[in-house]
Amino acid sequence: MTPARSVFFISDHTGITAEIIGKSLLSQFPDEAFASVSLPFVDTLEKANFAAQQVREAWRQSSLRPFVFSTLTDPGARAALDACGALVMDIYGHFLGMMVGEIGYPPEPLRGRFHGMADPNSYRSRIDAVNFALAADDGLGLEKYDRADVILVGVSRSGKTPTSLYMAMQYGLCVANYPLTPENFEQAGLPKSLEPHRAKLRGLTLAPERLAQIRAERRRNSPYAALETCRDELRQAEALMRAEGIPVVDSTHRSVEEIAALIKHSLAPTRADS
Amino acid sequence: MTPARSVFFISDHTGITAEIIGKSLLSQFPDEAFASVSLPFVDTLEKANFAAQQVREAWRQSSLRPFVFSTLTDPGARAALDACGALVMDIYGHFLGMMVGEIGYPPEPLRGRFHGMADPNSYRSRIDAVNFALAADDGLGLEKYDRADVILVGVSRSGKTPTSLYMAMQYGLCVANYPLTPENFEQAGLPKSLEPHRAKLRGLTLAPERLAQIRAERRRNSPYAALETCRDELRQAEALMRAEGIPVVDSTHRSVEEIAALIKHSLAPTRADS
Repeated sequence: MTPARSVFFISDHTGITAEIIGKSLLSQFPDEAFASVSLPFVDTLEKANFAAQQVREAWRQSSLRPFVFSTLTDPGARAALDACGALVMDIYGHFLGMMVGEIGYPPEPLRGRFHGMADPNSYRSRIDAVNFALAADDGLGLEKYDRADVILVGVSRSGKTPTSLYMAMQYGLCVANYPLTPENFEQAGLPKSLEPHRAKLRGLTLAPERLAQIRAERRRNSPYAALETCRDELRQAEALMRAEGIPVVDSTHRSVEEIAALIKHSLAPTRADS
Repeated sequence: MTPARSVFFISDHTGITAEIIGKSLLSQFPDEAFASVSLPFVDTLEKANFAAQQVREAWRQSSLRPFVFSTLTDPGARAALDACGALVMDIYGHFLGMMVGEIGYPPEPLRGRFHGMADPNSYRSRIDAVNFALAADDGLGLEKYDRADVILVGVSRSGKTPTSLYMAMQYGLCVANYPLTPENFEQAGLPKSLEPHRAKLRGLTLAPERLAQIRAERRRNSPYAALETCRDELRQAEALMRAEGIPVVDSTHRSVEEIAALIKHSLAPTRADS
């Protein structure tokens, strides 16, 4: 086995951008072994020098040249880091250079603007959206449905809650969710409280085997988790959603991020909230 | 006023990585106006050609050369997009090239690996962590505290819930939260249920004016939202946390991402879960 290559995510702020880019790139090399270290809040020249020293030390201990993903903004700190000799992916350095060439004046190196509260409106709307998702979770808060951007429907444990919360955090969308239960299937048509909000409804479904597995983690050997129950509920839920023309996402092989992106895409195919 | 420059986030998958990098870079130019469009799921050559056409169209309509942040992985699709003539920030193209030079063999262009479920263990642990945060929210689920990585404490509306959820989604950490209420302050010392978990406690505080404002959005003109009440509760909560040696983060001017990153940093200064 080859030794793991050291990977550093270095930032003068939270390190979230550096980690996301870095991990996304590393995932393209599934056969390599990486040992990653996060160094956030590297916001002085001294700390940048210390970070560079840690990278050099990691290099000395394995024979592989470390990878560094950096979103440092200060030119002095960036130079100090570069001096470590590792393969430095200087994200701001490279792309900001390209952008400056086009815009015609240099950026204001204000660190951490993006993951901070620089745009208080967009920040507040994301926190409000999280509170909305909690207040309108699992069939609660029906009186808030007018304010909802999306109302997710699906059987119990089909992934509605994590999807609602993720869409709130990532996109600032107000997402309610409403469980489809055996009682709903006894009546024909949509539950009354959903009727006025048809256009906002999006459905989640998944394979019965997967649902049974998820439910068993909650209540093992219960009728609730039995494969027969899952199969039955899903069949009825899917029939209802089909009959009512509700767009449905199958979550069996999809992550919450993927489900959220698909649903957002189904709302407004091209225009992003900027 | 100068017209807004068109910005495109183009991806063959969710577009999350492209949006995060792009918005992070754009935030360094606070004086520019950008009009952004997300084009996720561009996963065929045909869709790449159509995306390129949309970029050209946007350019024709404003006089400014559009910016494109792309995480397309397919070489053919990347070439088709490049042909649009806009300033294309080809994130994979640039950095993967650097990494290949070092690793010595090309990546497997498997799209969307990072925001998918490719690592089922890490993915499941994040969803489990979200469920944990919900089950141990606001003083619930005390019997789960043994499993918690962190227990957040603070007065009502100090930001505990969004922080818990964010840490679960982003880092897969199990974060409980426990409200400090006037009843707690009447007894000396820590609430009994927190005693055995001292090392996991992290506090949140904020300016009384800010807290009063947040509480007023919930219950306007209530004693709960009165500045005096806020001042009083915060003073007592801070005294308690100080006396018990609980590390505290001030959330007044910090986003949830920043608070989460600071708390994670306080747990394990250097090593990231890789």
